[in-house]
Amino acid sequence: MSTFDLSGYLSRNRNLVDAALLNVFHELDQHRELVRAMTHSLMAGGKRVRPALALATAGALGADPRIALPASCAIEMIHTYSLIHDDLPAMDDDDLRRGMPTCHKQFSEATAILAGDGLLTHAFHILAAPGSCFDIYPDTDTRLILVEKISAAAGINGMVEGQMLDMQAENNPEDLPLDRPGALAHLKKIHRHKTGAMIEVSVASGAISAGADKDALNALGTYAENIGLAFQVMDDILNVEGDPKVMGKAAGSDALRDKLTFPAILGLEESKVFSKQLVADALTALDSYSEKEFKKNSEPLRAIAGYIINRNR
Amino acid sequence: MSTFDLSGYLSRNRNLVDAALLNVFHELDQHRELVRAMTHSLMAGGKRVRPALALATAGALGADPRIALPASCAIEMIHTYSLIHDDLPAMDDDDLRRGMPTCHKQFSEATAILAGDGLLTHAFHILAAPGSCFDIYPDTDTRLILVEKISAAAGINGMVEGQMLDMQAENNPEDLPLDRPGALAHLKKIHRHKTGAMIEVSVASGAISAGADKDALNALGTYAENIGLAFQVMDDILNVEGDPKVMGKAAGSDALRDKLTFPAILGLEESKVFSKQLVADALTALDSYSEKEFKKNSEPLRAIAGYIINRNR
Repeated sequence: MSTFDLSGYLSRNRNLVDAALLNVFHELDQHRELVRAMTHSLMAGGKRVRPALALATAGALGADPRIALPASCAIEMIHTYSLIHDDLPAMDDDDLRRGMPTCHKQFSEATAILAGDGLLTHAFHILAAPGSCFDIYPDTDTRLILVEKISAAAGINGMVEGQMLDMQAENNPEDLPLDRPGALAHLKKIHRHKTGAMIEVSVASGAISAGADKDALNALGTYAENIGLAFQVMDDILNVEGDPKVMGKAAGSDALRDKLTFPAILGLEESKVFSKQLVADALTALDSYSEKEFKKNSEPLRAIAGYIINRNR
Repeated sequence: MSTFDLSGYLSRNRNLVDAALLNVFHELDQHRELVRAMTHSLMAGGKRVRPALALATAGALGADPRIALPASCAIEMIHTYSLIHDDLPAMDDDDLRRGMPTCHKQFSEATAILAGDGLLTHAFHILAAPGSCFDIYPDTDTRLILVEKISAAAGINGMVEGQMLDMQAENNPEDLPLDRPGALAHLKKIHRHKTGAMIEVSVASGAISAGADKDALNALGTYAENIGLAFQVMDDILNVEGDPKVMGKAAGSDALRDKLTFPAILGLEESKVFSKQLVADALTALDSYSEKEFKKNSEPLRAIAGYIINRNR
């Protein structure tokens, strides 16, 4: 049993990331409507899961975790833009996020579209020109690789396509495969694009920022792939049996909408077994990288993997 | 009087850019709805003004113009995403563009939002990883500078802010300066952000891709600033007195909406004088760069500047 204080670790990381994000925006005129709309959503109390993975990965490889802050901030800005655009009336039409008005509710639809566009564009800007916002950052070659990997994960073969697939599955359920293996494969495809790609690139960015070798990239890639999927399976499980008071939203909403989910395809018990197996595979992948200090330094990554299936929201 | 065949030159450049853009998208499954939505707007017969400027600039500096194709394609993809998002119901609510249904009319609002997001993200991807799409491209350091400059021009201190300022001017005309110098300064500020920044970075990208020295960057920067503004002044003039049949849209629409324009502030005649002065300043800036071959090689840039105030649409 690990005695690692994950909650303290995550809280310290969150402070680090929040401070860095504030620093990115601090030179801008805070009265500008566009800046207010971007910060409204960016500083709305997100858990900063993706930055935590990037920082923990850099630390696991023996680097100063702060080397992963530019990529962490870029990824969190991209994650936030995707939430702003997803919440729009034409997409999920959500009025609230984390108990706060969504960007288009607080400002306007046009402003929310532009705030999302601005966050996405500025994410690549800070990777290219981190100098005025960050004390330490990777060299130019490494930063160009980060632009390449993060734009791939966020773009038309990653997150944006995942949104598209998810939307098509909701709008045209008659086009979905009816057999269990087909439905499961399609659901995995949606999640691998929609959320998996950005989780994977969070880990990869931490590794790349820290100058990881090929063996480390492979082991960490398998870790990330497995926890990314486990995270989504657990989200589906919590939607079935989570405590509405803890979750901040009603349980059972997926089933009411006849949504394609892991419990709908596999049943609840088999979904739980599946999520545990994914986390076990993630930990095995970490074991496969035999660098001497890695076992000790990767404790946060192991704790995050465990947290995914033990959380209650 | 120059005998330079601008129309032939622009047409050759357009073919070069269109072929490169098709190449960027050719590996993708053309049946994907997202890919179809992106190409619908990207290949809708745009004039490719920005790529023409980038290619002409690289050529003016004695480089193979194709070195500027990655930046040209990225800039055109960003320009196209901005048109898709601008046309959305929450923004300008346009049903037609260049005689074709706008992206959200042809597909759906949600698809148009995602197609725009996808084009913006993929623009940075091809700058970071041009290898599979382009025969020649700048080195990694240069490409990271291109990411920096293009993200700055497209983002929250450039085009996105310009959209915001333009929208605020339309929605809150009572907040605009009432005096002539104040109104003129505010209108210039809107255009410098909304269209000027991307015109300027088109020229700058061509120069950077070609390895320009500081003197060239300065001269070309002044050229671009002046033609960018001249282009907008001329747009306003054509909106007053252009031939609706040639323009493809009704004249006088700005005045009907009480829009802040150069003719509204300066009057029509003074606007024409102003646009000619801007083009003259642009040409003077080119003269200031004394490199031996530049005078001959920069003929396309001079012809483009002249075209801006002699066009009829």
